[in-house]
This record gives sequence, C-alpha cells and structure tokens, in this order.
Amino acid sequence: MSKYLTKRSEDYSKWYNELVVKADLAENSGVRGMMVIKPYGYSIWERMQAEIDKMFKETGHENAYFPLLIPKSYFSKEASHVDGFAKECAVVTHYRLKNSEDGKGIVVDENAKLEEELIIRPTSETIIWDSYRKWIQSYRDLPLLINQWANVMRWEMRTRLFLRTSEFLWQEGHTAHATKNEAIEEAERMQGVYANFAENFMAMPVIKGIKTESERFAGAIETFTIEALMQDTKALQAGTSHFLGQNFAKAFDVKFTTKEGKQEFVWATSWGVSTRLMGALVMTHSDDKGLVIPPKLAPIQLVIVPIYKSEEQLSTISEKVEKMMLQLKAKGISVKYDNRTTHKPGWKFAEYELKGVPLRIGIGPRDIENNTFELVRRDTLSKQTVKQEELVDTVSSLLIEIQENLFNKALTFRNELITEVDSFDEFKEVLEKKGGFISAHWDGTNETEEAIKKQTKTTIRCIPLDVKKEEGKCIISGKKSPYRVLFAKAY
Amino acid sequence: MSKYLTKRSEDYSKWYNELVVKADLAENSGVRGMMVIKPYGYSIWERMQAEIDKMFKETGHENAYFPLLIPKSYFSKEASHVDGFAKECAVVTHYRLKNSEDGKGIVVDENAKLEEELIIRPTSETIIWDSYRKWIQSYRDLPLLINQWANVMRWEMRTRLFLRTSEFLWQEGHTAHATKNEAIEEAERMQGVYANFAENFMAMPVIKGIKTESERFAGAIETFTIEALMQDTKALQAGTSHFLGQNFAKAFDVKFTTKEGKQEFVWATSWGVSTRLMGALVMTHSDDKGLVIPPKLAPIQLVIVPIYKSEEQLSTISEKVEKMMLQLKAKGISVKYDNRTTHKPGWKFAEYELKGVPLRIGIGPRDIENNTFELVRRDTLSKQTVKQEELVDTVSSLLIEIQENLFNKALTFRNELITEVDSFDEFKEVLEKKGGFISAHWDGTNETEEAIKKQTKTTIRCIPLDVKKEEGKCIISGKKSPYRVLFAKAY
Repeated sequence: MSKYLTKRSEDYSKWYNELVVKADLAENSGVRGMMVIKPYGYSIWERMQAEIDKMFKETGHENAYFPLLIPKSYFSKEASHVDGFAKECAVVTHYRLKNSEDGKGIVVDENAKLEEELIIRPTSETIIWDSYRKWIQSYRDLPLLINQWANVMRWEMRTRLFLRTSEFLWQEGHTAHATKNEAIEEAERMQGVYANFAENFMAMPVIKGIKTESERFAGAIETFTIEALMQDTKALQAGTSHFLGQNFAKAFDVKFTTKEGKQEFVWATSWGVSTRLMGALVMTHSDDKGLVIPPKLAPIQLVIVPIYKSEEQLSTISEKVEKMMLQLKAKGISVKYDNRTTHKPGWKFAEYELKGVPLRIGIGPRDIENNTFELVRRDTLSKQTVKQEELVDTVSSLLIEIQENLFNKALTFRNELITEVDSFDEFKEVLEKKGGFISAHWDGTNETEEAIKKQTKTTIRCIPLDVKKEEGKCIISGKKSPYRVLFAKAY
Repeated sequence: MSKYLTKRSEDYSKWYNELVVKADLAENSGVRGMMVIKPYGYSIWERMQAEIDKMFKETGHENAYFPLLIPKSYFSKEASHVDGFAKECAVVTHYRLKNSEDGKGIVVDENAKLEEELIIRPTSETIIWDSYRKWIQSYRDLPLLINQWANVMRWEMRTRLFLRTSEFLWQEGHTAHATKNEAIEEAERMQGVYANFAENFMAMPVIKGIKTESERFAGAIETFTIEALMQDTKALQAGTSHFLGQNFAKAFDVKFTTKEGKQEFVWATSWGVSTRLMGALVMTHSDDKGLVIPPKLAPIQLVIVPIYKSEEQLSTISEKVEKMMLQLKAKGISVKYDNRTTHKPGWKFAEYELKGVPLRIGIGPRDIENNTFELVRRDTLSKQTVKQEELVDTVSSLLIEIQENLFNKALTFRNELITEVDSFDEFKEVLEKKGGFISAHWDGTNETEEAIKKQTKTTIRCIPLDVKKEEGKCIISGKKSPYRVLFAKAY
C-alpha cells in the first residue's frame, strides 16, 4: 500500500481516514458500519485499557460482566432512557437457522421466533439495575462500585472508524449509593479520572464541564463531560459521567434498608469512555507524515534500524544492538529492533514515522566505530547525536520530554482557540474564520440553544466547572446570563 | 443468603450450582441462558486472562478485534462449518424499534428490516478469514498470529453457569501460515500453552490428545484437546486447538505468493479457551465447605481477620496488621484485612472458606502478646502457629506448597480413575462402579464410536498424544486396533 497521505490542510477528514487505515489501526469490515481493530491499533487500545482499569481499581471499583442481550421490555421501564437508546439498535428476533429448501444456503427458521425480542446492548443500565435489585438490600451492600469492559451496538447510518461505528468497545461504570451527595461525588470523581487519563497519558488537554439539559445522557439528572479540541478546530466529547439520581432505582425497584431501618431508593451513577478515544488520540497529535503517539501509550517507544551493506556489517550491528536492547528493556523502555532484510532503511524510517513511534535510531558501521548514535524524535523530527554510555538516560528523559511537549503543544493550540464573543455576529465570524470553542453568554433556555444549533451547527459543549461568574446578556435573546458557556462544532 | 451447601456426595450437580451462586462467582440473569459474572468470579477470570494473554504474547501472538455480527452468507462458504455452527444462533433481523401505537411500549419497526440477516458470532473463523484475504498477499505477511478476546453466542436449551451458557467469554486464536507443517506445529504449540496454563496455574492435570473425526471442530482437519477429570468422575474438555488445513483459505480465497513466486492457499489454525475454565476450576478443587482456589489464581491469597472484644483491642490489632500487610504486599502477596465491624469472626471464617481464600490468619490480643499467629490452610484446613518474624517467608512457601498440593491431589485422583478394560462388559462395569476415563481398544470407525455412545453415553475424549502402540482388539467389533483410546462421560 502507498504510504502517501493526504495533507491535513487539503482534506482533514480524508487525512484521518487514510491515516487510520495506512497506519494499521483499523479498517472497515465486510459488515456495514462495523470495524476491524487491527493488531497495532488494538495494542494502543490495550495500553489505554490497562491504565484506565488501574485507575478504576485504585478508586475502589471492581469489574463484572452482564449479558449482551437485553429484553425489549427492560428499555420501556425508564421513560427518558427508552427515547434515547432503544430506537436505533440491533434486534434479535430468532434463535435458529436451517438449510434452505433449494439446498443453496441457510435461512431463518421461522419456528424459532423469540417470544420477546432481545436487543444488543446500546448501554447496560437496564440489565445491570435488574441485577442490582437482587444484590442490594441493606446499607451494608452500598456503595456498589462496578465497571464492565464490553462491546456495545448503536445502529449508525454514517460511520467513521473509531469516531462513530455501529459496534464499539468501551467500559461502562455503574454505581449505587446510599445518598445523593455520595453519588454526585462519584460522578465527579470519575470525570476527574477521565480528565487525568486524557491529559497525563493521551497528552490531550480537556475542559471539564457539565452538559446542558438537551445534551444530557438519556436518563441522567446531570452529565459531567470532558471536552477536547481536535486539530481541525472541532470539539470532541472524550468521556462522560452521569449522576442518574434515583431514576433507575425507581424503574427497577431497587431499595435498601438504611441504618435507621427505613426503606429508600438507591442513588446511581454511570460513566464511560470508548474506542472513540483512539480517534481523539490520532486527531490531537498526528501530522502529515503519520501518527504521533505519546510515549506513555506507544506500543513501541524506540525503534532501532540497522544500516548496512554487507552481511558482516549487519551481524556486527546486531551484536551491538542486542546489548543496547537489554539495557533499554531493563529500564522499562519498549524497544524494537527491525532487522528485516526484506526492506530498506529509508522504507523503515517512513514506516515508523507513519506509525508514530516516538524515537528512532538508525545505526551503521560508523556509529559503531564512533560509539555514538543518531536519535530522531517523532514529534519534532529533530535529530541529535548521543554517546553510547548516555543512551539509556537520554532515551528515558526524551520519552518524558516528548510526552510533555505533546501536551503543551496541544494545550497552546487549544487555548488559542477559545474565543470570547459578545454578539451573535461576532459568534458567526469567529466560527467561520477561526473555529474552536466560542465562549458566549446564553440565557439558559432550550429554545436559544436550539436556535443557535440550527443556524450554526454548533452545540453547547459544556458549562465549564471553573466558569467565572460574570453577568452578561445572551447573544441571541439579550436576556440575563450568569456566566459564559462553550459552543463548538463537534464530532 | 444461607451459607449452607448441599454436599457433593448428596447431589454433585446441585452442590456445583449452589457453590457458584453462594461464592459470588456468577448467577443467572433475567435473560434465559445468559449469566452475570459477578465481581468475585470476574476477578478470577481476569487473573486467568492475564496469564493466558502473557503466554500468547510470549509465543508471538498479537490481539485484535473483529465484528460481533457476521453476515449469514459468510457461514455458507465453508461447508462443514455451517453444519456445526450456523444453526443454533442468535439472528439479528432488524435495526430499529419504534413506539407502539397504543403508546404502552416499543415494537420492532418492520421498515427497518435488514436485507441480509446478521448472526451474533458463535466463533469468528468466517469474519476473520474475510479480513485475512485483504491482509495476506506475500510470504512476507506470514505467519499471521492473531488472537481475539470476545463474547460469543451459541443458543443453548439447557444451560449451566460457566459450563454451558448461550453467551460466554473466550479467546479465539486464528493464525495463517505458509506451510502445512508450520500450521500443525502452531496448533500443537497452543495445545501445549493450554496444558501449561491448566496444570501450572489452575493446578488441574490434563491429558493432551487428539479428537476422533466425529468429535472434531466443524471445519478442522485435526483437533488437539486437553481433557480434565472432575470430582464426579466426568471428563471436561478444557481447551481445543485446531489444524484447519486450507479449508478456510479456500472458502475465503486467501492466497499468498511464495518466495519462488507461486500462488498458494494459506494454512490455518484456530484455538480457544473460555469461561468454561471457571467451571473446571470449581469442580476440580472445591469441597463441601466451598471453593478452593489455587494461590496463583486467587484474587485474595491471604485474609486476616481480627478477633477482639473492645474498640481498643481492635485498634492495637489493626496497627499491627498494617505493618504485616506492608511486608506481605512487598513480597507480592495479595492480602486482605477484613476489619468490618458488622460481622463476627466466625461468620468471616466461614465466608472466606466459602470463597476459597488459600490462607487465613485470625489475630487476637494474645497473638499480639506472644508474637505468634495461627495460619489456617484452605486446602487441608490444617492449622499451624507461626512466629511473627517468620510470617512472610512462611506465607510465601505455603502458597507454593498449596499450589503443588492441589495439583498432586488432583493428579492422584485422576490417575486412579484411568482404567484399562479389554471387554465391553468390563467397560460397562467400570463405567457404572467407578467412572472416570476408560482406556480401551477401538477399531477406529464412526459406527463403533456411535454404538458405544448410544449404549453408554460415553464419548471418546481423545487419543492421547503419548499413547503406547499396543496391538489389540476393539471391545465392540473385535477388529484390530493399534492403541487404546480414552472414553468417558463428559460435560
């Protein structure tokens, strides 16, 4: 396959699609709207999972697993949830196939029709709360802090690899608490966990905020979100955490006996991040040469490519490299030696640039003589010469530096793209000429939000948690507004 | 819930079901045939996954993810595969629901009927080989060594927690090779990985063998298996690895260019283990008091329970225990201090026996005075007094000893239950009075195998890899037989 990538400036969307496929992250499958996550892409997702899972366990959560299929009637139990989720979804109606009468294939066996249709989970609140009813009796059973890693399905008409696919992988946390405050604290804590992961592992700055009513999760009282900004100046919702009040407890009749012996409904949260983060990672850092992966999530942190003319030179180099690898691995650095004889060094350099490996060493006979190596950084593409005895320390500190540099670069980019405006004309001008987050006064009504959305295709991404109180006037209605909210076009 | 367990001798099957539920491993969900894996059960499964995944990576495999739904037509492409798998399965026919006309619920939207039905994967050979066609062009692309961790669905009418459920979790490896020999070696290698995991982590002895034609995986040329023996003397197939020949390559037209420039079909393997291993673990070691978990897979290896009368005593004990925990954790021992004030020590002891925690310490004021502790082993229920300064070393070596003891005990049990017989009468007598594996001569025909199955409900579990050549006569037909095979009733 050609390594040529469309430039971001030419067609950002095309650049993204090509990059995801050419860098071996994922591709479309033979099933409409569903992707195959290829080994290289999956290895990055595994690293994300491992870090996130560790954070969940450190905050007291345990993993469990609930059924893939949910009876249709479960969805009807929580009124707003059914509107949000039970519509565009995969419906299982039969449980058997049989040979067709013409013998040429298989057909659905109409005698094996389910009495009640089963839905492939679009999210698992209903089936999980159906279990919680059996698990929760007393205050001693609370809090119940459970997470599930799973595949989910939401039927999508327009799909894009990682960003919007009918099937995706995610985690969904579902917790039950004795008090309202405890549940709100939990929802906020998990928003914090997501923000920590996004910033410190993905090197992706995020704004923590809450959603407006119209953008809330179906069934939530409050939705906490983290919002990132992509290189094309569009926002991306990277993770959400919901305070669900007693809605699901009431729908599934989950009560507990308090210390005082009273019967009360349980308070709930749910929260999730998905393989969408893979899309966010790609769009935050990558460039026209390919992926740029932050060292903390890179499956390969350093690649070593031998440059040689004879078999003898290769064997001298390989001997040297084996020793270097031992030292590097002892320091916990993930290093790969690409000694394939089927490809030339230049081809390999381009390959690892495309795949976003943070550091590269090309090593030839002269380097062995001089006891120095040339290190190339993927983020800046700058080169430096390193003495052999300093190799391990230099690589270690460069990996830290690259991680920080990626975050700072993304932060500067993002911060320059938060623009305060005080009129709708200004709003539209900024949107057209600059994009990004637009910080503006809003009167708090659905009508105004809807009007802005209709005219500009922007949505209110969030009301930032650290919003300043600032009396102002709504850019549309002119009515009073207590603070600014953030608008943007979004993925 | 009552901790009372039915005894194994009373009703083994009831004992198993009660234990799985009471020890918080899993329970039935509101969806027929599908289980909820509860946090304690899932934490054991996570440990299994982690060890198996490490072994896969050490043998050069990478993980990836393929779609949950497979177009119906894919199954028809490999003739024997469709007979084995595409029948009892969940069929997705629609992709939308709508509000019912009476406003009381939701119904399937008949306008959203799929052109081609989609099947929830019962196994993924077909969708994966559809991708491999695009991934494999040249000998340089081989071998392709990929594994997937996933949920799969096979519609079952009679289900049992972990042993047979409509949905289960598993891993499925799918590899592609340039030569027949390489593929056979891979299938054998993975059988070895499974045997290693079963014996060295689950402490469950297994017999490595090959399946007879009638017991092979649908689409395989050869199926390698590991067979274990449960305490009720029934066999359990714990993992299988298949040499698939060129069947799927031909069905999905996957060819590669050899070094010499020729076009050839690729050779394949697939191999899997599932949450069924959880059932095998329970049935291999557990007793009438509850689970017995081998230390290498135990989420909690040591539990410490304080025994106190006053708050002051508890705080003295807790102070001591905190120090002990630091030392134990530094040695990599997973330790829990259960200082809940809501439950008495005796209740806690029973609880951790039920949950199979390998070691227990009950610590009271006198132990603090004497600087000694009483350690209780879950496997033998024997007690020993340990000096404080010897605690960490003693616990470390006891964990190793328990792991070995469980394996040896299971091995002795299993070996005593392999019986050689030379006539069908003897066969039936052993089966009735003793059970276990019956080693007998068989003429190699499907007919004889079927006749024995019909009359005794036993199947040929395998032809052991280390089978001795020994001329003999088939116990049914009297025809010549080159070696003995193993029969058993099986899960």
